[in-house]
Amino acid sequence: MLLYDDTTGANNPRFVRIFLAEKNLKVPMKQVSIMKGEHKSEEFRKISPSAKLPALVLDDGTVILESVAICRYFENLHPEPPLLGRDAMDKVIVEMWHRRMEFEVMLPMALAFRNTFSPLATMWKQYKDFGEQQKRVADRRLEMLDRELEGRPFIAGEHYTIADIRVQTSFDLFRLAGFEIKEEWINLKQWYETVSSRPSAKA
Amino acid sequence: MLLYDDTTGANNPRFVRIFLAEKNLKVPMKQVSIMKGEHKSEEFRKISPSAKLPALVLDDGTVILESVAICRYFENLHPEPPLLGRDAMDKVIVEMWHRRMEFEVMLPMALAFRNTFSPLATMWKQYKDFGEQQKRVADRRLEMLDRELEGRPFIAGEHYTIADIRVQTSFDLFRLAGFEIKEEWINLKQWYETVSSRPSAKA
Repeated sequence: MLLYDDTTGANNPRFVRIFLAEKNLKVPMKQVSIMKGEHKSEEFRKISPSAKLPALVLDDGTVILESVAICRYFENLHPEPPLLGRDAMDKVIVEMWHRRMEFEVMLPMALAFRNTFSPLATMWKQYKDFGEQQKRVADRRLEMLDRELEGRPFIAGEHYTIADIRVQTSFDLFRLAGFEIKEEWINLKQWYETVSSRPSAKA
Repeated sequence: MLLYDDTTGANNPRFVRIFLAEKNLKVPMKQVSIMKGEHKSEEFRKISPSAKLPALVLDDGTVILESVAICRYFENLHPEPPLLGRDAMDKVIVEMWHRRMEFEVMLPMALAFRNTFSPLATMWKQYKDFGEQQKRVADRRLEMLDRELEGRPFIAGEHYTIADIRVQTSFDLFRLAGFEIKEEWINLKQWYETVSSRPSAKA
């Protein structure tokens, strides 16, 4: 197999790298630099028609796109430690939390980043007012997440899961748009310190 | 159990209704009108803090939010017909296609709808230029979907899955923003006629 990866600034490749690090899995990787625009090459589009990373190609030629689908493939092969849920019901709860984090936290952060972070203005048209509004949406959601983390160590409950990886990777990249964890968000601050001190955070 | 539903115009409640209709499942439902703003009531926010629909409350009080998590719960209980994939590998492929449809088709359509459909201007601030740009993004993606559907009946392959429900429900709602399936998109047109003629489409 071969995992097409990018370490020049994309969010979802790091999501999968952290997932693999948590499972202590080594996978052959090939770098496709988003900064250099290599993801938009005709060659890479044969693998990932929407020019998205990461992409996993299996030995039989099957292509798996989408971070969570790639994680589910590896979770099936290497269930321990479980990062998508521990039993059927827990899998539903983890999926709920992951999706809430993706749509309610990552998405407005990403939209704010793409539309307000000045260095990106050379790459695409930015809609600044919209980006600023999305920044406020994300900030309100982070404040709510601080309350949700009251009394539990991780986003989906007692265990570290892909819901944590989603917020962790979003924050580490999109903070470039000016996001910060406020001093008074004690639970969120504690959570961020905990996840950032895991060895996988270096991935 | 009780499924909180909305039939006044939301996308995700219909996604779950079609899913349940495909499985011929009847679930007790309670209507929460988004048009009347009932989803933002203090009472409903105790169930769904982000004021989102649908929401499923189990008899033991467990709350399941997020359309796909609700579908996975029902798929576990009633596996036939499988709408999330037929075996471990097929589940990965269906998840990939569903996510691609959600982020690449539904999302730009939804952003175009929210930001350009005039009647919504009374409900929130619209960013028209951004909405028009998202309309172009979605149109290009629909054109690509037409090519992807060449030689196969459904989005994830041989069987109708949640990837189809995602595009079907997106198109039926967000077409209000002016989306149409062009005459030359023969595969997409054929697909849309097929999915729309299933009994579940009335849900």
